[in-house]
Amino acid sequence: MSIQNQQSKLTIGLFGFGVVGEGLYKVLAHTPTLNAEIKKVCIRHPEKQRAAPARLFTTDAGELLNDPAINVIVELIDDAQAAYHIVTTALSKGKAVVSANKKMIAKHLEELIALQQQHDVPFLYEAACCASIPVIRNLEEYYDNDLLQGISGIVNGSTNFILTRVFDEQQSFDSALQLAQAEGFAESDPSLDINGIDAVNKLSILLTHAYGIISRPHELIHTGIQSLNENDALFAREKGYEIKLVAQAHKLKNGYIAAFVLPQFTEKSNQLFSVKNEYNGVIIESSLADKQFFYGKGAGGFPTASAVLSDLSALRYCYRYEYKKLHYQEPSLITNDFHLKVCIRFRGLTQVPHERFDIITEWSSSKDKCHVTGIISFKELLKSDWWKQPGVSLILYPDGIIDSYVPLKEHTEDAAEFVEQFAG
Amino acid sequence: MSIQNQQSKLTIGLFGFGVVGEGLYKVLAHTPTLNAEIKKVCIRHPEKQRAAPARLFTTDAGELLNDPAINVIVELIDDAQAAYHIVTTALSKGKAVVSANKKMIAKHLEELIALQQQHDVPFLYEAACCASIPVIRNLEEYYDNDLLQGISGIVNGSTNFILTRVFDEQQSFDSALQLAQAEGFAESDPSLDINGIDAVNKLSILLTHAYGIISRPHELIHTGIQSLNENDALFAREKGYEIKLVAQAHKLKNGYIAAFVLPQFTEKSNQLFSVKNEYNGVIIESSLADKQFFYGKGAGGFPTASAVLSDLSALRYCYRYEYKKLHYQEPSLITNDFHLKVCIRFRGLTQVPHERFDIITEWSSSKDKCHVTGIISFKELLKSDWWKQPGVSLILYPDGIIDSYVPLKEHTEDAAEFVEQFAG
Repeated sequence: MSIQNQQSKLTIGLFGFGVVGEGLYKVLAHTPTLNAEIKKVCIRHPEKQRAAPARLFTTDAGELLNDPAINVIVELIDDAQAAYHIVTTALSKGKAVVSANKKMIAKHLEELIALQQQHDVPFLYEAACCASIPVIRNLEEYYDNDLLQGISGIVNGSTNFILTRVFDEQQSFDSALQLAQAEGFAESDPSLDINGIDAVNKLSILLTHAYGIISRPHELIHTGIQSLNENDALFAREKGYEIKLVAQAHKLKNGYIAAFVLPQFTEKSNQLFSVKNEYNGVIIESSLADKQFFYGKGAGGFPTASAVLSDLSALRYCYRYEYKKLHYQEPSLITNDFHLKVCIRFRGLTQVPHERFDIITEWSSSKDKCHVTGIISFKELLKSDWWKQPGVSLILYPDGIIDSYVPLKEHTEDAAEFVEQFAG
Repeated sequence: MSIQNQQSKLTIGLFGFGVVGEGLYKVLAHTPTLNAEIKKVCIRHPEKQRAAPARLFTTDAGELLNDPAINVIVELIDDAQAAYHIVTTALSKGKAVVSANKKMIAKHLEELIALQQQHDVPFLYEAACCASIPVIRNLEEYYDNDLLQGISGIVNGSTNFILTRVFDEQQSFDSALQLAQAEGFAESDPSLDINGIDAVNKLSILLTHAYGIISRPHELIHTGIQSLNENDALFAREKGYEIKLVAQAHKLKNGYIAAFVLPQFTEKSNQLFSVKNEYNGVIIESSLADKQFFYGKGAGGFPTASAVLSDLSALRYCYRYEYKKLHYQEPSLITNDFHLKVCIRFRGLTQVPHERFDIITEWSSSKDKCHVTGIISFKELLKSDWWKQPGVSLILYPDGIIDSYVPLKEHTEDAAEFVEQFAG
């Protein structure tokens, strides 16, 4: 039984019964107008106490995937590999699928789009980006590729929680991370969040719905807040900035797209400045509407359940992503041919290949650190990962994307002067 | 030729060639991927110089409405009565319609919904609420009635511009209004904006998409900023508030909806506090996602054209409002059975029927003004318009909706004490 008619009843097979899964179960049970029922829940640990009747549970995935009465699979498990198997099997069997697994979706999006077309079934995943903020649906439905100038967002709640503690409460990065873990905003292994991998997974998904770009997350330049320390916070404060981890994609004058995840100095006048703690915020800029800002809870059981619920609600009305920018418009292309204005902190000159800077505009040095501000080609960041080494941090300036930069001779002289002074 | 197939070409008949109309014309001309062409533009003043070929223009509405090749009518004129005639005629002839005329839509929404059903054609009007912010589409698609706790928004750019000047730059209300007019954010007759009528028209439309409520705007309690003066600004500042004109609808514990437009003291922690100048902002609160905030330009030619363009883009994919809350869910009902915590400023005691207060918590008086803070039944505001009289202002407190209030005897004594003190 597939979903064909408006207001069809959804009979759901649910994978995973953690905070999100249990929240979803409760809401569906208490909201009959949603016309959706969970028929079976597949779990991995049958011995655990569950807040639902025992007859609901099974450890056999096949009981859900092979049940013709189940027309929707909702996948809410952590394991990306298992999630991939579940989602592809369900789609191949003509079942609609809702998932929140950004890592899995970002990695396999091209194949997942093809499967949807091949089997003519919807696959929705609003919860995979910014949880409760309807950013995927809005990019898909509301912003035409031609007019979309850019998106920039705080899409990872854990790192934003840590940065908020550092800037608003003068905590150290280390103690802020510990607090984030204690409050459940960071995983016990927080490296996916801290290193920017979660953010770049989300950026990769957003790129598809914003610009029709299919990208491999690991091919997009990204870093997190792992290298930031109190010196960077001090440097930012002195200039009236805070630091945010920003995932962004911008259309350059030549029509190509610049996309990356980097820490960025953020001014008070930027809407992202006001995004605090575990919240997420996304600015969508279009040539007509100017800047629009979407803000809400980007993580946590209920906000994620809320996005899953919206997807279920949309399924009742036969909604599916049409991947319009990919199929009906000319998809945009990624470029690495632009410059960035960045601040790099490092310990010794050998760490920073100063000759790679196009221009150095400012530098300061003390016993144990040196900050240098300048303009650098984005391609230099692709060549090797010197800027991700321990002891080195790289932070983008506000409006730090330099669209068309013509190198001048004197710039190398600036760099030479810097080297001389620093060495001296 | 109706719009049936995905990616149909839109052949547009446009009414009105003001800032929005001309902006739309330019964008469509420069963006072939939109696959939409303006075939004819109906204008009222043929003698005016236009930035488009003369063959495009006509003064005969029938040339557009009777042309079978035109499958979309875009209506961008000021005159609500003429707009009503154009829209109803076009829908009756099976043409899709896009309009930005909030006044006309709010007044005739019930009939316009019926016409859409009867003739099986879409009628889209995202531009009618908050211009570039996709609030109608999000309420329609993304927030289920059962889970939607409330919406509150700054939906009128002119009044927000004036309030920003008063609070951020200490201007007087009068000079701020003059500046708003000079900068084009307020009409030469600004009363529709200033008196809250524009805001209540938008609230009326939002109520339909949020809760399935069809309401007559003039039946909803509303006022604007016409009575506010420097005393109110001073009173607000002393308490760390700003004043915003807020359109809001909230689900009470009994499931009924409280809805109105009133000036409200706003705290820094409220996202609406940060909405400045001509911008709009809307908070949507749901029981799962918590608070979400949408922000963007709410007025002006380009933001409005942007929303119209999104509607056109949606038409290409056969999108239409389904009025889900109205047709597929149990529509909510409006109630007047709740209380408000308000501050009322007045000149003489005869202006304020103090006996109507349930409790008076604070008052202050000087030679020419008196402020009284207390809790009052919403029904008292419906009975007569004493609170809209010259010299009287009424401002809602933050969290000023008192859901279930049980009057106690001592409250009337408080009121009596107040009268005594004020009289003495």
